[in-house]
Amino acid sequence: MKTLRVRLKTASYPVYISKWNLRHTARCIQQYLAGQPVFIITSHAVKKFHQKKIQAVFSEYFKTRWISIPDGERFKNLTTVEKILTELSKRGAHRKTVLVAIGGGVVGDITGFVAAVYMRGVSYFNIPATLLAQVDASVGGKTGVDLKTGKNLAGAFYQPRAVFVHTDFLRTLPQREFLCGMAEVIKYALIQNAPFFSWLSRNSQNILRRTPSAVNCMIATCLGTKAKIVEQDERESHRRALLNFGHTLGHAIEQMGKYKKYSHGEAVAMGMVFATQLSHRLKMSRQDLTDDVINILKKYRLPTTLPPYPKEQYKRALSRDKKSQNETVKFIFLKRIGQARIVPLKINKLINYISKT
Amino acid sequence: MKTLRVRLKTASYPVYISKWNLRHTARCIQQYLAGQPVFIITSHAVKKFHQKKIQAVFSEYFKTRWISIPDGERFKNLTTVEKILTELSKRGAHRKTVLVAIGGGVVGDITGFVAAVYMRGVSYFNIPATLLAQVDASVGGKTGVDLKTGKNLAGAFYQPRAVFVHTDFLRTLPQREFLCGMAEVIKYALIQNAPFFSWLSRNSQNILRRTPSAVNCMIATCLGTKAKIVEQDERESHRRALLNFGHTLGHAIEQMGKYKKYSHGEAVAMGMVFATQLSHRLKMSRQDLTDDVINILKKYRLPTTLPPYPKEQYKRALSRDKKSQNETVKFIFLKRIGQARIVPLKINKLINYISKT
Repeated sequence: MKTLRVRLKTASYPVYISKWNLRHTARCIQQYLAGQPVFIITSHAVKKFHQKKIQAVFSEYFKTRWISIPDGERFKNLTTVEKILTELSKRGAHRKTVLVAIGGGVVGDITGFVAAVYMRGVSYFNIPATLLAQVDASVGGKTGVDLKTGKNLAGAFYQPRAVFVHTDFLRTLPQREFLCGMAEVIKYALIQNAPFFSWLSRNSQNILRRTPSAVNCMIATCLGTKAKIVEQDERESHRRALLNFGHTLGHAIEQMGKYKKYSHGEAVAMGMVFATQLSHRLKMSRQDLTDDVINILKKYRLPTTLPPYPKEQYKRALSRDKKSQNETVKFIFLKRIGQARIVPLKINKLINYISKT
Repeated sequence: MKTLRVRLKTASYPVYISKWNLRHTARCIQQYLAGQPVFIITSHAVKKFHQKKIQAVFSEYFKTRWISIPDGERFKNLTTVEKILTELSKRGAHRKTVLVAIGGGVVGDITGFVAAVYMRGVSYFNIPATLLAQVDASVGGKTGVDLKTGKNLAGAFYQPRAVFVHTDFLRTLPQREFLCGMAEVIKYALIQNAPFFSWLSRNSQNILRRTPSAVNCMIATCLGTKAKIVEQDERESHRRALLNFGHTLGHAIEQMGKYKKYSHGEAVAMGMVFATQLSHRLKMSRQDLTDDVINILKKYRLPTTLPPYPKEQYKRALSRDKKSQNETVKFIFLKRIGQARIVPLKINKLINYISKT
């Protein structure tokens, strides 16, 4: 088992990375209990596949109450939040209640937010069950839900007590979801870690086959990178924005596809290619950087060209980006492999570049 | 103008108490702006009565966008929160957007919560427009909304940048709402400030006539008391619970009356009488303390006997109190005027006492 520690001003917590270690997880959670049951928030799918074996171990340590929600970004909204809050209240959850999220990014984001607001804050743990959640969403304390007008517009910075990454969850993950997570993995390499980029290029077959040793090493590298960035800038005043590489356009594409047509990772992959092309066009990088980015994404079977929505639609979607202020976004450019840059960019300018792509 | 300062670990902010001083308010808010418009969240009623004169002053200092919501606790829910969040997003609010609440406790609680979660947190100011909001809800950072299952079950601790108490708002406040605030005023005297209790007993005529000097003095005393308690215990780990005197039963009564039949103050008044009677019954206080409490509430035309709901209904309402843990509440007893005590109490015991009242 690998252990990382995320050290923030407001909280400090461990991230455990192991193959399948529910006993250790149960013992850690138990330390926060005084006899009360644990509320497990999960998706219908995760519940169906994993409840039995999780329950078998957990029930030796504490009582559990399960609440499951529908799968998919479409349900990451305030309606689902209200349902969970009401359910918690009906079933007697109180201020010392402990929540445990088991699922992908949607379950983690919602559970974190529910924990932040239920009775003005209760403790929660995160057990991410998809690659995307394991390498990205589970660490950093960004919780929240979407509004009809845009992604993650309602939320809170709220840190879990601990994160347990069980990589065995990935064995049954559908391929499209695995690849979705790979887009974020590649992002870490591009913005911060050139040796990791080479490693990813060399090991694509091992990783696509989900060889445990390669996958575990990859996840630990990503989380180490993320923890470092978040520690420097928890509230995203500046440096944390690097993690948004490919996301400005990515979020717009997800929204235009109504969170159905493109997965988060696919949208981010397209966004990263565009951001790299733009970096070259604005003379921040060399042409062959774009080729490198496209090549690695292709290796991991991710899309590399923007969907042909009308310019006006891009404009509307981009204006609602929550990072935009007075028609400007902090855009993340790529200078070279392993080095990104944050530069303010007018949304109008951005739209013009899109229509020329 | 009187100025108090609330000094918390997470934030420190001023509370200004004056008759009507919109220019000062506008100048303070302006310091937080860089050209962007201010979003004012208010109730339909406050907007109708006050928008024109507020707008006349504010527009000299900054652009404003108004969002108004229906009046009443019934609308203090996640549906209203979502409406405001969506409206903010549609009208281009971003991370540097500043919100200003103008209204009663409902507007203040909702706006604070919206500020806490919109894009994971934006700045807000509070301009309380009712006596209840001025003496209580506006200071302390408790924000949130009700669920169908109970009051204030979803929320956050989130502090405003400053609070502006304009006592001239009270001149047009309906009598029932004024008296509702008086219940909280009397609460401060009972739990913490015996000389203030005598002063309130002597000055009831002046106060009921809303003589500005008396009312201003009263508000400053209440806020001073509240600030001191909140500074000692922002997150209500212990001492802040004193402020819940009369509220355990009060919340249950409000809920049983569907937030329509009894105002918050009326419910709290009944709850305070009950808590005082119980203090005597458990030998924590003398019989004449109950008489004193009943007498002052009667002076301020507040109800003093519990509504005759069935015992089972009380039980259901009380079990959902968010302060209850494992069937126990931290009950606030009154030892003598100016001195309260926090003692854990089984909800079942509490129900039994109610049925004997």
